[in-house]
Amino acid sequence: MAKLQATPYTLTSTHDVLTPLRIARSVIAGTDVEEAAFARWFDDLRSRFQMKVQRVDLDALVGWSTAPDTGDIAHDSGKFFRIEGLEVHFPHRPVKAWSQPIINQPEVGILGILVREIEGVLHCLIQAKAEPGNYHGLQLCPTVQATRSNYTKVHGGSSVPYLEYFRDTTRHRVLTDVRQSEQGAWFRQKRNRNMVVEVSEDVELLDGFRWVTLGLVHRLLHREDLINMDLRTVLSCIPFAGPDLRTALTVRGDDFHAALVASCNEESGGLHAMSDILSWITEVRTRTEVSTRDVPLGGLPGWHRSAEKISHRSGLFFDVIGVDVRSGAREVNAWTQPMIAPIGTGLVAFLVTRILGVLHVLVHARAEPGYLDVVELAPTVQCTPDNYAVLPRAARPSFVDEVLGAAPEQIRFDTLLSEEGGRFYHSRNKYMIVEVDPEPGFEHPDFRWLTLHQLVDLLRHSHYLNVQARSLVACLHSLSARERR
Amino acid sequence: MAKLQATPYTLTSTHDVLTPLRIARSVIAGTDVEEAAFARWFDDLRSRFQMKVQRVDLDALVGWSTAPDTGDIAHDSGKFFRIEGLEVHFPHRPVKAWSQPIINQPEVGILGILVREIEGVLHCLIQAKAEPGNYHGLQLCPTVQATRSNYTKVHGGSSVPYLEYFRDTTRHRVLTDVRQSEQGAWFRQKRNRNMVVEVSEDVELLDGFRWVTLGLVHRLLHREDLINMDLRTVLSCIPFAGPDLRTALTVRGDDFHAALVASCNEESGGLHAMSDILSWITEVRTRTEVSTRDVPLGGLPGWHRSAEKISHRSGLFFDVIGVDVRSGAREVNAWTQPMIAPIGTGLVAFLVTRILGVLHVLVHARAEPGYLDVVELAPTVQCTPDNYAVLPRAARPSFVDEVLGAAPEQIRFDTLLSEEGGRFYHSRNKYMIVEVDPEPGFEHPDFRWLTLHQLVDLLRHSHYLNVQARSLVACLHSLSARERR
Repeated sequence: MAKLQATPYTLTSTHDVLTPLRIARSVIAGTDVEEAAFARWFDDLRSRFQMKVQRVDLDALVGWSTAPDTGDIAHDSGKFFRIEGLEVHFPHRPVKAWSQPIINQPEVGILGILVREIEGVLHCLIQAKAEPGNYHGLQLCPTVQATRSNYTKVHGGSSVPYLEYFRDTTRHRVLTDVRQSEQGAWFRQKRNRNMVVEVSEDVELLDGFRWVTLGLVHRLLHREDLINMDLRTVLSCIPFAGPDLRTALTVRGDDFHAALVASCNEESGGLHAMSDILSWITEVRTRTEVSTRDVPLGGLPGWHRSAEKISHRSGLFFDVIGVDVRSGAREVNAWTQPMIAPIGTGLVAFLVTRILGVLHVLVHARAEPGYLDVVELAPTVQCTPDNYAVLPRAARPSFVDEVLGAAPEQIRFDTLLSEEGGRFYHSRNKYMIVEVDPEPGFEHPDFRWLTLHQLVDLLRHSHYLNVQARSLVACLHSLSARERR
Repeated sequence: MAKLQATPYTLTSTHDVLTPLRIARSVIAGTDVEEAAFARWFDDLRSRFQMKVQRVDLDALVGWSTAPDTGDIAHDSGKFFRIEGLEVHFPHRPVKAWSQPIINQPEVGILGILVREIEGVLHCLIQAKAEPGNYHGLQLCPTVQATRSNYTKVHGGSSVPYLEYFRDTTRHRVLTDVRQSEQGAWFRQKRNRNMVVEVSEDVELLDGFRWVTLGLVHRLLHREDLINMDLRTVLSCIPFAGPDLRTALTVRGDDFHAALVASCNEESGGLHAMSDILSWITEVRTRTEVSTRDVPLGGLPGWHRSAEKISHRSGLFFDVIGVDVRSGAREVNAWTQPMIAPIGTGLVAFLVTRILGVLHVLVHARAEPGYLDVVELAPTVQCTPDNYAVLPRAARPSFVDEVLGAAPEQIRFDTLLSEEGGRFYHSRNKYMIVEVDPEPGFEHPDFRWLTLHQLVDLLRHSHYLNVQARSLVACLHSLSARERR
């Protein structure tokens, strides 16, 4: 029990108003010169970092076993993750019940970006890293992405670089620190701690890491399969808002940009007051009935295990597969592991609209079986269009046609991005931001138009925005830098 | 899919600044005249409303059965609640593991206060109601306290009065709507929806209900066993804050009151920035290891079932008992049910201190087995002192001595209040607010000094403050009215 440092007390402002301005500065600081230097660095890395991934039979996984009684797949150490069965009941949906494999990974890992002012501009320390599920090899990650097994060294590898900045923050400044969910369709209540930590001291720069401005990160978000999911989610939780942002960003931009910047500003107001939005979320969470039950993975109704995979009898949704990984740059040089391999490319999209000069985003209060608290706010559209071939017509998601039928001038963002390459094999979604006219707009009991400021406000807390919506928030922020070139 | 009402759009301020002022007006509007009229009304009700509660054997409960295989106690309809067994593991605590009975009540009920402006002043519609566990019969409740079984009429009684205002809020104004946890030591992930709904239309006043100012409610909070737990938790979630509150309340009060009012005001600042507080909560939630496992109630280690109760072999903690209830004023006139009967009176206390003229409250990040997300912010002290007789000395809670040894002039609030009388039998806690000198203050990894404004801000969201802390927040608010007499 230490005594409080008694004199002098200082009272700090409850809300930090300077950081959003510093963030805005970093957003507009990206240059062609920085981008060209990045390209040289990345090309060099790509020529040196190699990872070879081969699919193997599930029974050929080393260190992983199928439990004879349940058919669940688990690591012999009891760590990492397990693949189990889940029975899901949605009594009020067109598809009222199903069974599916699900990843159980109860540990909370750390996804952390280290930031530092360099010549007065905030820079992020990013890492180029290959993961077995990546479609195009190397991608850009946060400074640290560590499961608890990682940093307690279950895998026997080397320690995680830069982890100490996130494990003991007392000497540093914490800009973001919030636990957020990941794919609720594939993970059972998985959460990761999203952190942004600012240091003022010198930091050793290791091979494979690079300091970049937010402006450069925003440019790179428009490239296919480059900014990985973990980096996108941490980026979305950065406090992108505040009264100073308007001054910093409105120096340029057409009407769309002015509306985007106004949307970041609390003073612009919004179609709904925050208390109404919170009440709506409470209402949907209370009204939505979903129940799940852990069941054995072996003999899961509708699913079949062959030597090489566990798959749905329709051939849709996803497979559980095994991979053999060999790498010169990972913590351990060779391993095998099970992965989720989705069938088809997903579609993840926000409809946005300008209302009285303020950009609004149409979010969907969506239930997924793996969420801790029933419902999270999701993109307007989040689906794999191919899956709906076998489902009743009423199960077809709303607004798919508005997104897929958008004219080129409505499309503000459109890039194929990967999901987490450590668990998901070639899992890619087409991320889109599509602008629609406010008239006719859309309202629906499960959808609401929110401003970007309101989304950023909710992102300070856990379990409001799902991982796909967080990715799209990062994409939305990136639009403030893109048109500058 | 309805079209958005397209023209004219209006953008509303994201944060409501007028409501806190209207709340402050209602707080200072309590008068001796109102209190005297209330006393006459309440005395009359007490003479008319009768409830007779008798303890009965567990096997004598009608409609409730003990499952032959598990020993769990459940209602034959499958509704209401079940009493089950829970095995709890806290690997890093002095008491590393135990087993206990726990109430499983997965339904989310509604606790709602209807408010309305009467002659320009907000009034709350409260209800006088007897519940079987109440120590002194009739207590004051919110307008509505309805479990889902209640309003879907599983019990076959009459419908819940005023419930329609909370089930369809489209014509009304929602001031508060947030799901909050209840006792994590006795309930498995129980939540209730805390709502405050304002109507502008006339409302029929039923027998047993009364419109009162917040000022009167605050006065009555100082009476033993009068304001029930459900009313206290909804009161705590009312948005008591905003820049106008200072003007409204600083017309009176000594230094303590000025510090209390300043503490409600965001502009006063605080010892910790909000981002640091959120990061601290994230850190404690990540660091704290707790795991639970559902186990059968029958044969629970350390517990013994006799004809009349299930009790711990030490005679401490709580018993599971049966009661027979006969009442003229409840939804059904007679029933039996199991209840939790705690042993001994609890102590629930906030230490508060003035730092540079701003009152700060010492909150404890506390893990309880029934929480949805590991840890919630709890009072500085929350314990039943008698229980620690059988536990190791290291298990004795911090700050108990500071509370129990406080001099009379340090004690700002000290009242015995009841916990929920529908589940808990004669469960009473001594609620205290004790002022300490800032020097020596206290810091500890699991404790932080927060302002009242910060607590109110957190109360807009679920699972930050536990039910005991919420009661104490309501008690703190009540101090702004008390000294006025």
